[in-house]
Amino acid sequence: MWHLYQHTLCPFSRKVRFLAAEKGVTVELVRELPWERRDGFIELNPAGQTPVLSDGTLVLIDSVAICEYLEETVERTSLLGSGAAERAEQRRLIAWFDQKFYSEAVVPLLSERMFKRVVARAAPDAGVLRAAGRAVEGHLDYFDYLLERRRWLSGPAFGMADIAAAAHISVADYLGGIDWDGHDSTRQWYSALKSRPTFRPMLGEKMEGLPPPPHYDKLDF
Amino acid sequence: MWHLYQHTLCPFSRKVRFLAAEKGVTVELVRELPWERRDGFIELNPAGQTPVLSDGTLVLIDSVAICEYLEETVERTSLLGSGAAERAEQRRLIAWFDQKFYSEAVVPLLSERMFKRVVARAAPDAGVLRAAGRAVEGHLDYFDYLLERRRWLSGPAFGMADIAAAAHISVADYLGGIDWDGHDSTRQWYSALKSRPTFRPMLGEKMEGLPPPPHYDKLDF
Ligand SMILES: N[C@@H](CCC(=O)N[C@@H](CS)C(=O)NCC(=O)O)C(=O)O
Ligand SMILES: N[C@@H](CCC(=O)N[C@@H](CS)C(=O)NCC(=O)O)C(=O)O
Repeated sequence: MWHLYQHTLCPFSRKVRFLAAEKGVTVELVRELPWERRDGFIELNPAGQTPVLSDGTLVLIDSVAICEYLEETVERTSLLGSGAAERAEQRRLIAWFDQKFYSEAVVPLLSERMFKRVVARAAPDAGVLRAAGRAVEGHLDYFDYLLERRRWLSGPAFGMADIAAAAHISVADYLGGIDWDGHDSTRQWYSALKSRPTFRPMLGEKMEGLPPPPHYDKLDF
Repeated sequence: MWHLYQHTLCPFSRKVRFLAAEKGVTVELVRELPWERRDGFIELNPAGQTPVLSDGTLVLIDSVAICEYLEETVERTSLLGSGAAERAEQRRLIAWFDQKFYSEAVVPLLSERMFKRVVARAAPDAGVLRAAGRAVEGHLDYFDYLLERRRWLSGPAFGMADIAAAAHISVADYLGGIDWDGHDSTRQWYSALKSRPTFRPMLGEKMEGLPPPPHYDKLDF
C-alpha cells in the first residue's frame, strides 16, 4: 500500500494525487505539515519537503521523480505522450508550473494567506500580494495564448502538464489569488479539469481556519 | 546541428553540456546572458531562461526536459540507470541540486559575486554570503554522508545526479563559495569528476572580469 505524505495546500502533492488517480493507483494520505519539521519526516526525506510516496520499503521523493516513476511502472494511458519531442514539451510546462508559477504566484500566496494566517498569526503584506497578482495575470495571458492554439496545455492530448497546472492553479485559486476575468480560454480548460472525477474530490477539502472563496469548487465560475 | 543558448556560469547549462559530452552529442555554444532579456531569446523561450537547445526546428527548453530528451533519443550508456527505483533516486538528487542547492547556495553566490560585480557594479552583501556559506557546509555534510556509502552520488554507477551535482558545485566553486576543508569524501568524488574529459574543458573557461580562485581547475585541491 502506498502512503503519500502531504497536506491539502501543497501543489506538488496535489499533482501526485491527481496523477495517481488518473493512473488508477490508490494512495493512502498521511497529513504532513513540512514547516513542523517532524523528526521522523526529516529521516524519511532529508530535504524536509512534501510530497513523499512510500510503500514502507521504497521511499520516493520529489513530485517529478514520483510522477516519472508512476508513468514508468503503471501500465495505463501514457500521461507524457508518445514521442520524445512531445514529452519534452510536457516537461517544459511541468517545470514552468513547478518552478516559475510556483515561485512567482503560489509561494507568495501560501506565505501571505496561509502561513501568516494559520501558523504565524500575522497580517498579510499587501505589496507582496499585489506583485503576486500581477504575476498571475501574466501567467494567465500565456496560458490563454497556448490554449487558443491547443486543446490541452502541451498539445492535442491531456497529460502531465495539465495535471501540474491544475495542481498549482487550484492552490492559488483556493487562496483567492486568481482573477478569472478576461481569461476565458484558461477558464474553459480549467472547468473541464474541475469536472474530472480524478481531480474533483480534492476541491472538496478544506484547511481548517482558512475557507476558500465561494467560486473555488464550482464548475461554473 | 544543435545550438545551446547558455553562459559559462549557468549551472543548468553546464549540466546539459556535461551530459551531451557524455552522450557524444556535439553542441555549438551560443552565448546568451538571460538578464539582458534579448527579444529574440524571449521569443525562443518565453520563460527567458538559459539553457535552450535547438536544431533550428525543435526548441528544447528546461535542463531537465533537455537531459531526459537526450537520454531517450541518444543510444549510449544510460545516465539514469536501469530500474525505475534507480531512476527515481537519480531524479530526487537532480531536483536536490537544481532546486535546493541552487537556491540556497548558487543563487546567492551568483547574485552577490557575479551579478553585482559584472552587471550592477555594487558591493556584495556579507550577510548573504555568510548564509550561503552555512548552507554549502550543510550540503557538503550530506554529500559526504552519501559518498561514504555509495561509489557515486545515487549508487554504484555514475549518472545524471553526478552530472547535475558537478554542474552546480563547479559554479559555486568558481565563485569562491566552497570550503573543501573537512569534506574528503566529496572532494575525492569531485576530483574524479574534474579529470573526466567530458567535464574538464569547462573548467578552463572564464567570465571576463571575474577570475576563479587558483584551486578551481586543479585536480589536487
Ligand atoms: N521539488 C519538490 C518541491 C516540494 C516542495 O517545495 N514542497 C513544499 C510544500 S508545497 C515544502 O515542503 N516546503 C518546505 C520546505 O521547502 O522546507 C517536489 O517537486 O516535490
Ligand atoms: N528550470 C530551468 C532553470 C533555468 C534557470 O534558472 N536559468 C537561469 C540562469 S542559470 C536563468 O536563466 N535565470 C534568469 C531568469 O530566471 O529570469 C532549467 O532547469 O533549465
